[in-house]
Order: sequence, then C-alpha cells, then structure tokens
Amino acid sequence: MWGGRFSEGPSAIMEEINASIDVDRRLWREDIAGSKAHADMLAACGVISGADNTAIRDGLDSVAGEIDRGAFQYSKALEDIHMNIEARLKELIGEPAGRLHTARSRNDQVATDFRLWVRTACRESASALRELCRVLATRAQENADAVMPGFTHLQTAQPVTFGHHLLAYAEMFARDAGRFDDAARRMNECPLGAAALAGTSFPIDREQTAKTLGFDRPCANSLDAVSSRDFATEAMAAAAITATHLSRLGEELVIWTSAQFGFVRLSDAFSTGSSIMPQKRNPDAAELVRAKTGSIVGSLNTLLMVMKGLALAYAKDMQEDKATTFRCFDDLALALAAATGMIGDLKVDRDAMKNAAGGGYSTATDLADWLVRKLNMPFRDAHHVTGSVVALAEKKGAALDALSLKDLQSVEPRITRDVFDVLSVDASVASRTSFGGTAPANVKREAEKWLTRLSKES
Amino acid sequence: MWGGRFSEGPSAIMEEINASIDVDRRLWREDIAGSKAHADMLAACGVISGADNTAIRDGLDSVAGEIDRGAFQYSKALEDIHMNIEARLKELIGEPAGRLHTARSRNDQVATDFRLWVRTACRESASALRELCRVLATRAQENADAVMPGFTHLQTAQPVTFGHHLLAYAEMFARDAGRFDDAARRMNECPLGAAALAGTSFPIDREQTAKTLGFDRPCANSLDAVSSRDFATEAMAAAAITATHLSRLGEELVIWTSAQFGFVRLSDAFSTGSSIMPQKRNPDAAELVRAKTGSIVGSLNTLLMVMKGLALAYAKDMQEDKATTFRCFDDLALALAAATGMIGDLKVDRDAMKNAAGGGYSTATDLADWLVRKLNMPFRDAHHVTGSVVALAEKKGAALDALSLKDLQSVEPRITRDVFDVLSVDASVASRTSFGGTAPANVKREAEKWLTRLSKES
Amino acid sequence: MWGGRFSEGPSAIMEEINASIDVDRRLWREDIAGSKAHADMLAACGVISGADNTAIRDGLDSVAGEIDRGAFQYSKALEDIHMNIEARLKELIGEPAGRLHTARSRNDQVATDFRLWVRTACRESASALRELCRVLATRAQENADAVMPGFTHLQTAQPVTFGHHLLAYAEMFARDAGRFDDAARRMNECPLGAAALAGTSFPIDREQTAKTLGFDRPCANSLDAVSSRDFATEAMAAAAITATHLSRLGEELVIWTSAQFGFVRLSDAFSTGSSIMPQKRNPDAAELVRAKTGSIVGSLNTLLMVMKGLALAYAKDMQEDKATTFRCFDDLALALAAATGMIGDLKVDRDAMKNAAGGGYSTATDLADWLVRKLNMPFRDAHHVTGSVVALAEKKGAALDALSLKDLQSVEPRITRDVFDVLSVDASVASRTSFGGTAPANVKREAEKWLTRLSKES
Amino acid sequence: MWGGRFSEGPSAIMEEINASIDVDRRLWREDIAGSKAHADMLAACGVISGADNTAIRDGLDSVAGEIDRGAFQYSKALEDIHMNIEARLKELIGEPAGRLHTARSRNDQVATDFRLWVRTACRESASALRELCRVLATRAQENADAVMPGFTHLQTAQPVTFGHHLLAYAEMFARDAGRFDDAARRMNECPLGAAALAGTSFPIDREQTAKTLGFDRPCANSLDAVSSRDFATEAMAAAAITATHLSRLGEELVIWTSAQFGFVRLSDAFSTGSSIMPQKRNPDAAELVRAKTGSIVGSLNTLLMVMKGLALAYAKDMQEDKATTFRCFDDLALALAAATGMIGDLKVDRDAMKNAAGGGYSTATDLADWLVRKLNMPFRDAHHVTGSVVALAEKKGAALDALSLKDLQSVEPRITRDVFDVLSVDASVASRTSFGGTAPANVKREAEKWLTRLSKES
Repeated sequence: MWGGRFSEGPSAIMEEINASIDVDRRLWREDIAGSKAHADMLAACGVISGADNTAIRDGLDSVAGEIDRGAFQYSKALEDIHMNIEARLKELIGEPAGRLHTARSRNDQVATDFRLWVRTACRESASALRELCRVLATRAQENADAVMPGFTHLQTAQPVTFGHHLLAYAEMFARDAGRFDDAARRMNECPLGAAALAGTSFPIDREQTAKTLGFDRPCANSLDAVSSRDFATEAMAAAAITATHLSRLGEELVIWTSAQFGFVRLSDAFSTGSSIMPQKRNPDAAELVRAKTGSIVGSLNTLLMVMKGLALAYAKDMQEDKATTFRCFDDLALALAAATGMIGDLKVDRDAMKNAAGGGYSTATDLADWLVRKLNMPFRDAHHVTGSVVALAEKKGAALDALSLKDLQSVEPRITRDVFDVLSVDASVASRTSFGGTAPANVKREAEKWLTRLSKES
Repeated sequence: MWGGRFSEGPSAIMEEINASIDVDRRLWREDIAGSKAHADMLAACGVISGADNTAIRDGLDSVAGEIDRGAFQYSKALEDIHMNIEARLKELIGEPAGRLHTARSRNDQVATDFRLWVRTACRESASALRELCRVLATRAQENADAVMPGFTHLQTAQPVTFGHHLLAYAEMFARDAGRFDDAARRMNECPLGAAALAGTSFPIDREQTAKTLGFDRPCANSLDAVSSRDFATEAMAAAAITATHLSRLGEELVIWTSAQFGFVRLSDAFSTGSSIMPQKRNPDAAELVRAKTGSIVGSLNTLLMVMKGLALAYAKDMQEDKATTFRCFDDLALALAAATGMIGDLKVDRDAMKNAAGGGYSTATDLADWLVRKLNMPFRDAHHVTGSVVALAEKKGAALDALSLKDLQSVEPRITRDVFDVLSVDASVASRTSFGGTAPANVKREAEKWLTRLSKES
Repeated sequence: MWGGRFSEGPSAIMEEINASIDVDRRLWREDIAGSKAHADMLAACGVISGADNTAIRDGLDSVAGEIDRGAFQYSKALEDIHMNIEARLKELIGEPAGRLHTARSRNDQVATDFRLWVRTACRESASALRELCRVLATRAQENADAVMPGFTHLQTAQPVTFGHHLLAYAEMFARDAGRFDDAARRMNECPLGAAALAGTSFPIDREQTAKTLGFDRPCANSLDAVSSRDFATEAMAAAAITATHLSRLGEELVIWTSAQFGFVRLSDAFSTGSSIMPQKRNPDAAELVRAKTGSIVGSLNTLLMVMKGLALAYAKDMQEDKATTFRCFDDLALALAAATGMIGDLKVDRDAMKNAAGGGYSTATDLADWLVRKLNMPFRDAHHVTGSVVALAEKKGAALDALSLKDLQSVEPRITRDVFDVLSVDASVASRTSFGGTAPANVKREAEKWLTRLSKES
Repeated sequence: MWGGRFSEGPSAIMEEINASIDVDRRLWREDIAGSKAHADMLAACGVISGADNTAIRDGLDSVAGEIDRGAFQYSKALEDIHMNIEARLKELIGEPAGRLHTARSRNDQVATDFRLWVRTACRESASALRELCRVLATRAQENADAVMPGFTHLQTAQPVTFGHHLLAYAEMFARDAGRFDDAARRMNECPLGAAALAGTSFPIDREQTAKTLGFDRPCANSLDAVSSRDFATEAMAAAAITATHLSRLGEELVIWTSAQFGFVRLSDAFSTGSSIMPQKRNPDAAELVRAKTGSIVGSLNTLLMVMKGLALAYAKDMQEDKATTFRCFDDLALALAAATGMIGDLKVDRDAMKNAAGGGYSTATDLADWLVRKLNMPFRDAHHVTGSVVALAEKKGAALDALSLKDLQSVEPRITRDVFDVLSVDASVASRTSFGGTAPANVKREAEKWLTRLSKES
C-alpha cells in the first residue's frame, strides 16, 4: 500500500513535508489580493516606483486569470501557492516581480492570506447559520401550535409545540453565529508588514495595507503577527460548538423519522432509499450532520495540539494549520447546508406528535400548578397530591383528562371542575405564557421577532 | 483496588450516578442567590406572600451562614446542593420552604446556578489575564532594549528585544481576555423561569429575576434555557486557547532556563531544587503551566463529546458538565497565577541574550534591506548577494560586522562604509521602526500604551 | 470565587503545583509493596543489612496499618505519598529508613507505583468486561428467539433476535477486555532500579524486584523506564474504545425505553422517577453510561497532550498523569457496573419488539433471496422484482406475508406458494443460519459458547 | 469562497454526502480481492456456477488492470468504489456480474475492504517502526560511549550516553510496533457473509472466504461485523501513542540542533535553508514529526466521537471512518519515514555533548553513592553531605572533579582519594552497570541485542 511510497528516500520525504501547494492553493485569491495591497502601499511610500507597481498589478491580474480559468501550472517544486504565484509573475513581468517581496516575508504573507481566508469562512458560517435560523423561524411560525411531547431523558415530560422546539435551535444557532462574528472581529488585524518576525526598516505604511484588505488595523506586535494562530482555533472552536448543536438536531431527526416515532418525514431530496425496500427512507443527511461533529472537533483538537508548546516565532509545525482548518469549514458548510435543507422541507405529522404528547400523563405538572394556584397548596404538597392522582389514573388505565371529577376528588376533595381546563395537552401548552414559554401565542410572536431581526441582519 | 467498590450492588451504583453533591456543592452561593431572587419575584408578583418571602430569605441567609462557617451537614441521599439547601430550609422555616419551588424546577435552577458560576469564572479569568498582561508590559518596559535572538525553528533568525517578545504574549493574552468577555456577555441571559422545559402558567416576571441576578435579560426560549450548555463549552474553548498560549510561554521558560540557553533565571519561589544538587533549579512552575494545556483541552473535549447527539431537553448526561468545567477553571487559574508570578520576578541575563543574538549572522536581512534601499536592487537579487556575503563570513569565521569593507566589496563593489550602520544587532533592532516592529522605541511606546490601557480596564 | 485563592502569593501557587498528595495517596499500597521489594533486594545483594531490612519491613507494615485504618496523618508539606510514607517510616524506625532510598530515586519509585496501579486497573477492567459479557450471554440465551427489528439508520431493515443483538455487544466487550489484557502484559516490566534516569552503580538485582512485584522482567533502559507513560495512555485508549461501545449500548437503552419504542423496561434499581409522575421511568443509568464516554476520552486526550513534545527524562508535566488516569478508571468502573446491572435485570417486551420487527417490509430481502435461490435470478434482478412487490404491498397497505399468491404472481409469475415460508419475521430469522447469522439456533449455540468460555476465563 | 458551493440545492448537498468515491477509491485492491474470494466461495458452495465465477474473476482482473494503469473512469453518481467496480464489471461481463452480490451486502463488503486496509496499515506501521528501531540501535552502537547530559526538567541531572538515549526510543517504538501487531491480530476476523446485518439464508462457507483473505476466522456475530469500527480506533490509538513518542524525539532534535545546544547536526537532506542565510539549517523534518501528533490524535478523536452513541447496525455516520483513518496513516507513515531518515544520517558533536554533560555538577549523585558505599552512610545523609560539597564547588567556581581532596575533606573528613574515580562524567557513566543502566558496555550489549532481534523479525 503505502509501503514503498518513500522508496526514493529523503527527497521524497522532504517534498512531502515541504510542498503544501496541494493544500494552500485554495489561498490564491487571498494571496493575490495581499500582494496587490502590498505593492500599492510600497509605491505610495516610494519604496517601489509607480511603473513597477503597475507592472506588478497587471501581472497579478494575469496570474489570477490563469488560475481562475484553470490554466495555471502548479509546481510542487515551488512548494506553496505564494512561490508559485511569484514565480509565474516573474515569468510574466520580469524584474519588477523581484521588488514585490520588499519589506515582506513569507511569514507575514502566509499569516495574512490565511487570516483573510478564515475571516471569510467565519462570515460565511455566520451567514449560513442565520439562514438556518430563518428557516427554523419560518417552520416554527407554521407549527407554533403543533403540540408534541417535550422530553427529558427521552421520556415524555410536558407537552410543548413543535414551533417552540424549533426556536430552541434558532437560539443556539444564533449564538453560534455570534461566535463567528466575534471571531471575525477579533482576528481583524493585519499581519502584513511584520516581515519575518521583527518588523522592517523600510518606511512602510501598515495602516494602508490593513485598510485595503478590510482589516480594522495592523497587528501591533510583529512577533505575535507571525506566530499566532488563535484566530483559526477560535474559529474552529465556534465551529465545534455549532457542530454539537447540529448533532443534537441530527439525532432528533433520526429519532423522529424512525417508524416508532414518526413525527416528521424528510423529503426525498434528503433521504436515501433502497432499491429493494422502496418505502425505506434513510435519514442519511441527518446522520451526516450528526457525524460531522467528530470531524470538526477533531480538527479543532489538531490545531490546539499542534500549537501546544511551540516556541516563538514561526515553526514548521504551523504548516499543519491550513489543512485542518479548511477541512473543518468544508465539513461545517456541508452540515449547515444539509440541516437547512432538511428543516426547510420536512413534513410534520401533527397527529402523531399530538398523540405522543398526550401519553405519559404529561400534564401532571399542570395539575400540580393548578393545586398551588387555586388551593394555595405549597408546591411540594401539590406535587404529592398529583402523584397520587397519576397513580390512580395509571391504575384505571386512563389519561388524566379522562378521569372523572369524582376520581380527582377522591384524592383531593377541594378539586373543582375547572381543573379540566388545564388537563389537556392543548390547554397545557396554551397556559405556558410566561416569557420564553411554549404557549402558541408566544411561539408565534417569537418566530415573527426572529424573522424581522434576521431580515435586517442578512 | 476498585474491584469491590460496587459490591453493595445497584444501590451503590445509583448513588454514585445520582449524587452530585461532592461536585456541585461549589454552587452553594449561586444557588442561594438564585433562590432569593426567585422568592422576591414570586412575592412581587403575588404568587407567594410577603411573609413567606421574608421567611425564605431569612432561612436562606441562615443556611448560607452554616455553609460558610463549615457547619452545614451535606447529605448524599439528598443528591445535590439544591436539594440539600431546600431540605435544610424546610427544617429551619417549615411550610414556606415548600412554596419556594413554585414556578421553578430543578432544570432551570441548575442551569441558572451553573451559568452564574461560569460567568464569574470568565470574569475572573479575564481579570487574571489582564493582570498577566500588566506584568508582561511592566517587564517589557524594563527590557525594551534588551537584545535577544528572534528564532524561527528555534534557529536564530533576526535580533529582537526581550521586551518585544514579552509584548507578543501580551497581545495573545489580551485576545484571550476578550474571548472570556465575549463569552460572559453572550451567556448573560437568565434561564430561571423556564421551569422544567416548557415555561410556566404562573404570572411570573422573568425580567425581574434576570435583573436581580445581573443578567441582561431572560432566555427567550424555555427549551433552550434548560438544554444548552454552550455557555460552558465556549468558556472552556476560551480556556483551551489561553492554555495553548500559556504552554508556549511555559516551553520558552523551560528552554530559556536551560544551562545551554541561560537567558533567564526564575526566582527561588518558582523553582524547585534538589538537596543533592543545590545549584539545580528546576522550572517546575513553567512545566506545570505547559502541562495544564492537556488537562484544559481534555475538559473542553469532554463536554463537547458529552453534548454530542443529545436529544432535547434535559438528559442525565448533562450532569457531567460541572465536574469538567470546575476542573478546567481550577487548572486555568493555577496556570495563570504561576505564569504571572514567574514573569513578574524572573531575572534576565542580558549578556547571554545579546551574545546569542549576534550568532547565526542574524543581521543578514538587514544587509539585504540595505542593498535594496541604497542600491535599488530588487529584493530577490539583494537576497542573493547577501547569501554570498554570509558564505564569505562563514568561511572567514567572522561575524558580518567583523568583515572589512573590502571583503564586502569583493562580493558587491557598490557597497559603501555606511553599511556598517546596519550590521550590528543593536543597529538592527533600532532600525525596525515600522509599526509593530521590534525597535526599542516602539517597544517602550507599546508597553506604555498597554499599561495605560490596562490601568483603565481593571 | 477562586479570585483570592492564591492571595498568599508564590508559596500558595507552588504548594498547589508541587503537592500531589491529594491525588497520589491512592498509590499507598503500591508504594509500600514497592519499598518492601526494594529493601528485600538491597538486603539480598548486601547493600543494606538484614537487620535494616527487617526494621524497614516492620516499619512499612506499621505505616500500612495506619493508612488502612485511617490513622495516618497526611502532610501537604511532604508533597506526595512517597515522601509521606518515608517520613513516617523515619519517625517509626529512625536511621534504617534513610537507607531505603539507596539505589532508588523518586523517579523510578513513582513509575513503579503508578505502573502497578494501572496494571491492576487493566486487570479489573478486563474482569468487569467479562462479567458484562457473561450477563449479556445469559440474557442472550433467554432471548435467543425474541424477534426484534434490526435497524440501519434507525429504520427497520431486517428482523433479528434480541439475543443476537446482545451478543453483538459481547463481541465488542470481549475485544475490549483483550485490549486491557494486552496493555497489562505489555506494561509488565519493572522500572525499579532505573534510579533517577541513568541506572545505578550499586550492585542491585533488578530481576528480583521485578519478580517480587509480579513483573515479567525489569525495564531494559533506565531512561525509558522513568520517562515513558505509554502504559497509561494505552490503558486509557482501551478505556476510550470500551466507552464508545458502552455509549452505543446506553443510547440504545435510552431509545428502547422510550414510550415510542417500549422494547425494554429497566428495573426500578436503575431508573429514577419523579414524585409528580410516578409512572415516569428515567433511564439515568443508561444516560450516565453514554455520557462517561466524554469524560474517558477527555482523560485520554489529556495525557496524550501532556506527553506531546516532552524532552526526556522526567519533566514536571508528567505529574498530571495520575489524576487523569485515576479519573478515567473511576468513570469506566462506574459505567461498566451500571451497564452490567441494567442488562442483568431489564425486562424485555417481546410483543412490542416483534410487532415492530414486522413493520417496514422487513422481510423484503428474504423474498429477494428466495427469488435468487428458487428462480435462479441474478441478485440485482431479484432486488428489482422485490422492490415492485413491496411497492404493491405498500399500495395495498398490507404486510408482505399478507399479500396473496396472486398479488405476488402479478409481479413475477414464477413465484410459488412456498415463498410464504420466508415472508414472516420468524421464518426470516430462522433462515439466517449462516455462521454468525441471527437464527435462534445459532444464537443459542453462540450464547452457550460464550458462557462456557467465560466460565473458564474468570 | 465556499458560499455558493451548494447553490444547486439539495442535489449538490446529497451528492457531497453520499459520494465517497474520492475517499474510498483507495480501497480498490481490497474490494477486488474481497469480491474474488466471495465469488470463489459462492461457486464452491454451488450458489453460482463455475462459469459465472470464471467470468467474474476475469472481469475483476480487467477492472483491476484498468484502475492500476489509470484508465478507469470513476463516476461520482455511482457513489463509492464498490458500485463503481460492480458497474464496470457489469459492462464488461454482463449478467454474471449481477450474481456476485448474492449473499453479500454493501455493509459487509465495506467492512471487509476497510478491515483489510487497516490490517495492512498496521503491518506496515509495525514494519516501519522496526526499521526505525534498527536505525536507532545502529546509531546507538556507534554512540554507546558518547557522553551527554541526562536531563530532568531540561536541566542537567546526570551524565548518560547518547547511545543509551537513542535506545530509550527503541524501547518506546518497539512497544508501539507491538501495539500494531496486537491490533492487526485482534481485527483479523472476516465480516464477509454478515450480509446487511443478520447473516444470510444462502449456504455459504464463511471459513473459506476468511481463509482466502488471510483472516484467522469469520466474525462470529453478523451485527457486530457490520456495526463495529473498533479495529480502526484501536489502530489509530496505536498511531496516537506512537505519535507522542515521535513528538518527543522531534522536540529533542529541534532543541539539540539549536545553536545553544549544538549536540547534533541534521543532514542537508532533512534540513531546509534560507537563500539569505546559507548557514541556517532549519530542522523542518523534526518539526513536522512533532506536529503530526496533532493531526494523528485529531483523527483518533474524530472516529471516537463519530462512533459515540450510534445505535446498531449501520448508520451513515460511519462513512466518516475512512477519510480520518487514511489521513491518520498517511501522517504516521510520513512522520516515521522522516524520523528514520533523520536519525540515520545525523552527525553527532561528541565534544559539545560531553562539555555539556560536565556542567551542573552532574556527578553529584555519584559522590553521594560513593559515600553510601564506602562510608556506609545512610542515603539521606550522603545526600546532605553531597549538597555541601556542591555548594563549596559552586562557591569556588570549580567542577566537582576539580576540587582538591582537602576541599572534599573539609566537608567530610572520611573522604579518600579514590573518590575521584567516580567524579568525572566518563567514570560516572561507566559505573552505571546495573541492568538497564547507561554504562557504555551495557549500551553496546543492548544495541547488539536489538540488532539481532530485529534481524529476525523483519
């Protein structure tokens, strides 16, 4: 298998170690943007001539064009995307290409390119999360009054509405988006001009390059600028937290689409079947969303471990940063797209949900609350009385709202007929009107707030 | 060993599973604060009487007093801190204790207590990080002109100053503090009133409890409020990133205090010796700082993995959240304290640093930059010429600034005497005046900015 | 909170860093056994006198007695269990205590004690796993013919038997036990006598101490002996893999005990209820088993990360090894005990399982196989025909074995009446007689094999 | 960037989720071997005809030829390598291709192919580790008497020899190889014939296919066979432990090649330079070896987390297994090759090592041991006397063996001239003749044992 892979000896090993072009070619856009900003600044500061700058810009545009249309010849011998582009620039424009690297080193160049990429990844992730929230809110609005069991320990606890359940995820994913926003903001300082590690003696204007590339300001310490990768670990930590949220949604979709639950049905687009069992609908997309947590958390772990204990400034170890970060965001993008798609077009079986919601004496706490409210029982006593009522219902094989008033009064004589106002699942959810509660009116209002807010944000 | 631990059978196993009191007793302050806020609100909303509220408050104060002075009897049978406190309250005040739990469940109570704890942990971590930054800036100011080698690959690359190196860490730790600030802000929503999972039918005022407990607002979705732990994972992710920064500092201290480097000397307070080798100074504190990364990242991984794929709302799995979070912040607090202490009183050997800085032809890039600036050579050509000069110096066994002008001109005839202005390590660092560069003047200015900024923040 | 914890300054920090006694006191038995073996060997080799050895042994027995009956005074100032015991020994027997540490250092002493502990932990884990296998096999035997749905993607795929399902876990856990066996065997080399790191000039007999302590041989390289902790990481890797298996079983128990599935019922001993909903049975133990994966994998990660990049030989970082390993095996022991307990006394609802097994046209592949076998159709064609039959059944709202022969022949005229021999779930499972298949006869036989094998192993 | 990647909507998402061909095409050899073994067995059991088997074998050989010479057209629509090969087989041989899948499903086919791949990866890893041990032993033999400092806390502790240090790694890597052996052995059971999950009703001979494919036996439980991936996690755990060992070696090489240590010099083949600083030798390969730990541990974490909590049998989540395992072993192979290469041709600076070994009063414990041995002092007292001697030497600025006898006697009058026999670093290492100690004679003997043993194993 890979036995003889390095049979050529050291040269094959070192090429594998040094050549990052297969991974970092994804940075070509960022590299060209960075070089243009740098050349413009060098010209503005008089470090290179205007003519050289024009030649460099035109040359870089040509290179970009070649890459974009697939005509660029990547060379492994030139190791990385930065040297590949510079070498091609030299072929195209000759001597001025040799001036581009003035007051710059590969260290700050790589740090800048990669930071630009991660910044974009954060913004796109936040945007994808907000789109997912929008879809959740839309479906929540439609299902604001669709009663389903609220579970603890996967045991029926209290009825909630499906809309309310969906909005719980909107809360999570909105916080996740906020994490990406914060990460993008915090990393928004430009390493360019830090040079190899110590800064430079050329009279450069780091404010200009920072501004051109959309950074808030230049990094304030050259060693930090080229040595730190916490912008990537923070972004991946945000991805990891998002992934745990996605995994919970994925798990629920898998459970809900089981024959035993049957709460929802994924569209054909997001299920796979079997030629032999045409009715079988495997929730592959939901499982994939769940599984990606492993890969995303693994990516985060990788970079945390790579960076552990590295002396400043650059060390070759840090070359591992890009593959793991790219993979992390590829995984996240796919999982977010799949989750958004599944939620967007799943079909809800309201009857199945409601039937399940009524099981397990799920309105027991409503009865207890009624006892507290109407009979002024201490909560703990009301709890006790309710337990006796449920035990009676269980013995009779009846739901709580199927007990007679007499039955109820046999446990607690002060119970009156209006207790039945709270014993049905519809009554239960309708009564939970406290802020953040599951009452359909609440859910509708919250869903609308979400949609309004999100329409402003995107 | 632990073979017979569960010899009593299921009851011993279930006690071990259910009794979290050994872990969650750390939440007692938060639990009492939460209960008081809840009781006040219930009274304000007319759900309980003023007299009950007074009894509850006085009772809780008594309980707090007992715990504070070590007089409280914890019971494993009562499982957790919440039930321990409530049971004791009942003993002390009787019936009103039974009304405290109205419109509340253990789910929102735990979520509130734990969130309060994590919020404090974030604030304390940010504060400890800023103290570390202050110490770094103070030492940087003193060492703004102490020349040392700047390394890449642990090979001498260019001279920098020790102050500059310290400020690189100030940048990292300040971003880390920012992450804790963001986490504390994002989690600052109050779960109380979410009840078991669905909200409540009691006419409660969640704004009031949120405000009393210092939250910005109540959580907007009851299911999310009791099901989510991303506030803890985010806080631990911030800790994990901080830990990688600390591990790099720890590693450098270990290397710098080796006999071979000898750049710094840790104080007796932060070294351990050997009775047999009294001169031996083991950097135990630095190693511990480095090692804690493993434990902290492990804690983060634990909670990410626990939360993976959990269906909403509460599941027993989530009980694992507290032990791992507490441990994470204990580790972090110790590592931060040790790092701050070590930096604060380490002794710098300026001579050793400067000697090392002059090795390895570390001003070669200064020569190249001079060629570009004075002779208008393209950067890549200047690089080539410099390579030839260094090769000559190596052959002669001389440092760059020990070559004669003639030597230099034998490689490039246009070189003039003023090249010597850039070939010493002092000249090199002094020349790096670009923003963020290592020039002593820059470093002094940056250190002062840090001290000014930090004096405002703390 | 922990703000002022280190207010006493460096001394408080260093005590926290250095004092491991709260953690490593668990090693007291191993420490005393190691010291006795060492003293015996020193006496046998003439390095200490027989009288000194006797004094040391008696003294150590006294110390052991004190610890065992809770009379030992641990001192934080003495840092660890090793110094605590040695200091007490000195109090008890005076000068000979000072000879015990000849040809030994704390480095090889700690490595030996910890290795002994981990070896025991591995053996106990393997033993607990085999007990779990025994319980699984016993329950499998009882349920060899209890038909349930076999799932893929949590969708009904083919019928299996519950016994078969349980034996799948027996396979996993037996492999897990094998990993602990291998780990215990591989680590079974004695570090004692490696001294600080270089060996010793005393004429010691490392074979003797190795043998006394039950090791196969002494470690062959003194540097490796004191620097390596792969014995602990291997043991924790085995625990991590076991934990993923346990988590799958935990997840299935949670799903199976849901109202919607209702396949099994956990005993009261392993469920928790609610005072208000007496019928509610929360599978806390199953959830805990699932959750412990996070903690166990986190422990493994911790030590892997601590050890990353440590120069030989001992570094303070390695002090982190014990807390994480102890925690890992505490978690594992609890999870194994809970899993064994739950499986041992859960109640199976055979009707619910069988009903579910018949859903989803779960015998479709049996039909396809019949077509291949009886009509010599290529498999892929048989697949296609079966799909059409299932589609017809779905249209008619009938199970496969409720279709008429005419119905079946309308799709494929060559189908004969004996096809009905394979269309019921009982027929289906009975037919899967290939080695490893789910046929009840197979399952019974395999369960017996397990019980026979396990009775020999324990 | 990846914003518009899924602009085509669900179909693009599902293709990305389902099409694993870009990853699993590496399994083509295993897939073809598995299919041939299956077809042979089907023919032997009379399930397919001999003619069909011949057609299938010939067809598979043709497909293999096409793949091997790069002529195979992979189709993403056909999802994976298994369907790609089967579809091509159908094109080539027609109807018999449709019979190949009899008594098999994609589930057992994938499990078999992947297991074969991981088994090979384990064997190749063990073999590469033994080659590394061979190189270590060879270099150890050459350097059996090259004295260097033995460090604790990166502080000089006692002199050792470089050969001894290298053999410490041989011990670690040999244990690592043993872990791969154990993993390969434990996984050596054949899933083929487990079919989808329940076994099959065809009269197949699983012993035959197992034997043909080099397995020890068929898997004994069909559900386990298709649901378990612990063979891959165990293999990756072995890789992770290996990686921590490699990271320690990598770290030491980075430190040793620093200007400050200067113990070894990597060959040009394994260093990279700088055009501007031709003397600069960056230990890129050593850093890469160190960094790969992050990626390898990340891969292990990924699969552990993916498998957490998955209900049996197959779930789409498990598709994530291959990418992470392939990556893990690619990383490991590269790191092992680089480590082997670097050790094989590094140059040792014996003088630099020996000079360093003499620093730090590294023979202090030799003095203490002399006091115990010759003056019969208790070890703890000898320790104390030695501390006073070292303090005196430090005051005088002299090495221990440069003190006069008078100096020594001023601390302890009983000291005699022959103490000087143990105070030099050469004497120190020569005296450590206990089994496993660093004495050159020991090291030479151990190195020879290694070379003899390894010559038998490979």
